[in-house]
Amino acid sequence: MAVLFGSSRDHGNTETLTKLALEGMQYTSFYLKNYKVNPIDDLRHTKSGFVKVDDDYDELMREVIHHEILIFATPVYWYGMSGVIKKFIDRFSQSLRDESLNFKDKMGRKKAFVITVGGDNPRIKALPLIQQFQYIFDFSGTEFAGYLIGKANAPHEIQSDSRSISDAMEFRKVLQKHTE
Amino acid sequence: MAVLFGSSRDHGNTETLTKLALEGMQYTSFYLKNYKVNPIDDLRHTKSGFVKVDDDYDELMREVIHHEILIFATPVYWYGMSGVIKKFIDRFSQSLRDESLNFKDKMGRKKAFVITVGGDNPRIKALPLIQQFQYIFDFSGTEFAGYLIGKANAPHEIQSDSRSISDAMEFRKVLQKHTE
Amino acid sequence: MAVLFGSSRDHGNTETLTKLALEGMQYTSFYLKNYKVNPIDDLRHTKSGFVKVDDDYDELMREVIHHEILIFATPVYWYGMSGVIKKFIDRFSQSLRDESLNFKDKMGRKKAFVITVGGDNPRIKALPLIQQFQYIFDFSGTEFAGYLIGKANAPHEIQSDSRSISDAMEFRKVLQKHTE
Amino acid sequence: MAVLFGSSRDHGNTETLTKLALEGMQYTSFYLKNYKVNPIDDLRHTKSGFVKVDDDYDELMREVIHHEILIFATPVYWYGMSGVIKKFIDRFSQSLRDESLNFKDKMGRKKAFVITVGGDNPRIKALPLIQQFQYIFDFSGTEFAGYLIGKANAPHEIQSDSRSISDAMEFRKVLQKHTE
Repeated sequence: MAVLFGSSRDHGNTETLTKLALEGMQYTSFYLKNYKVNPIDDLRHTKSGFVKVDDDYDELMREVIHHEILIFATPVYWYGMSGVIKKFIDRFSQSLRDESLNFKDKMGRKKAFVITVGGDNPRIKALPLIQQFQYIFDFSGTEFAGYLIGKANAPHEIQSDSRSISDAMEFRKVLQKHTE
Repeated sequence: MAVLFGSSRDHGNTETLTKLALEGMQYTSFYLKNYKVNPIDDLRHTKSGFVKVDDDYDELMREVIHHEILIFATPVYWYGMSGVIKKFIDRFSQSLRDESLNFKDKMGRKKAFVITVGGDNPRIKALPLIQQFQYIFDFSGTEFAGYLIGKANAPHEIQSDSRSISDAMEFRKVLQKHTE
Repeated sequence: MAVLFGSSRDHGNTETLTKLALEGMQYTSFYLKNYKVNPIDDLRHTKSGFVKVDDDYDELMREVIHHEILIFATPVYWYGMSGVIKKFIDRFSQSLRDESLNFKDKMGRKKAFVITVGGDNPRIKALPLIQQFQYIFDFSGTEFAGYLIGKANAPHEIQSDSRSISDAMEFRKVLQKHTE
Repeated sequence: MAVLFGSSRDHGNTETLTKLALEGMQYTSFYLKNYKVNPIDDLRHTKSGFVKVDDDYDELMREVIHHEILIFATPVYWYGMSGVIKKFIDRFSQSLRDESLNFKDKMGRKKAFVITVGGDNPRIKALPLIQQFQYIFDFSGTEFAGYLIGKANAPHEIQSDSRSISDAMEFRKVLQKHTE
């Protein structure tokens, strides 16, 4: 199980809620902000195709792709996933053309979860974000096995949002079923 | 009128459709990929607040904010706006705290439009992207005055999608009314 | 607290889940299928305005409007609320013009919840239904205080969907906070 | 080509816009408000299954099902399709079990369009309605070939909304391509 963190802050609400939801489980954390991931240069339609990019994406993806369960943990920034995680996902287009990776086949056998925390009515206003992940996973053939929406704004606020905490406990049960 | 281009390619379908839609009109183009815009470092809740970032964002925003009409022109990447434009929008959080900018007040008097082009059933699957822009503009008090969804995948495909072309002509009429 | 049931079946999954979520609480149930509610005849724009309709709607609404908390409990039929409950909601247009009712003012001081159960990936595919309720409550000024999405298809299936049951328990806690 | 009108008024904005969009084309109109269509009685899971209902649905569906192109024309009532058309669609569940009808196979070879007119920012707030139709057509295997959203509130307002009129002209071109 791999967790892809899209936050810009350390120990933010999304990270806190995710760790709480995953307590007692084994997983590998990838803090995307600590990797150099360039925005995609869309070369899908050039003769040469994608070229090697001098950043951390390829190596990162080669680690991520080993995991059977992927958890996308992103704060709600401006009603969408963070730019950090979006940049990462945009690069999937490159992975699709990387024959050594077997990306689509491998993604098609994974399960994915989304954890997101927002401050402005996220249980409604993060729904487009959830729908976008559904389209992403539909495209890659990945099973979208569940999502968790937390509500918090200032640091540590998530700990005092009892609804978010309870939902994290429920999310954990769902996740445990998928890892048995 | 300012156009914020979120594409990674030059002369891509989004740029082509946008230029067609704006033919004969005066506007300033900002190709976001040509600016250094770091991902937000969310310091909203630290004592010191946001600190000066060594990139092009501040200067860019100071130019953008002068324009009364903003057009966000982004390809549909993985069912959302591009990472390049998302990174830019994430930084609005910093602008909100920049008292010298008067961001929210100024955004509250602007009109915004969205132009987006996708390859996979965008008139349905780009709707969450449109809904997110609505939430963004609701938050900033900006009038969301219209959107244009084009359909194309490979380079130059947009020119042969008659529906996209016709819709661009209609979009231009709407835009012209708002600039009279 | 009033519960508006939109099901066509007695003892269906929506009813079961709703009763479970509300266990131990006091509420009045309205089974909409047992009332004669004609489709709206849109006379908003006629000189005479709406005319008295020979059905149960007016009396029903006069009872419903007394309650401070409204729970809309509807199965997901074809990815939307049931026709039975939609017919009822469409008639709100008539109530808006009924000066003796003071509809908008009263709705503006209520809290509303939605409980819905569907068989086909409802935690994703019922999201447009949830968004529609948000728009409805935005219009009437009603606080949309929470929603519960259950998953079940055949009769009694909801009892064996542990996720739905857990979520109902969480929903109850949220509801209890709003009724304290 | 069959047009299913969900309006409660005659000569309303939805009807006007639809007729304009279809000018010069051949089609059969079904005004659903003039048919007796009971709400579904969900008997999918009873031993006996669905029973003959004493209303106009079966006969209506037998006529509708002959047409290769279906146009669902509904006003936006409370951010969704009208109760009249929702009641009709809910009955599809019955048709699915009616072996003499071959419903799913036939729907799977049709193309569908949606025309809807609303008064409150419909190009944004009717998007959940459009997404629901997408799910409906996904389920029935029907191609969702296009949609038209008009903006109007009071009677005849649609005629003076130039954007709606232009969009109707564009819609007609799309439709014509599908009927060639």
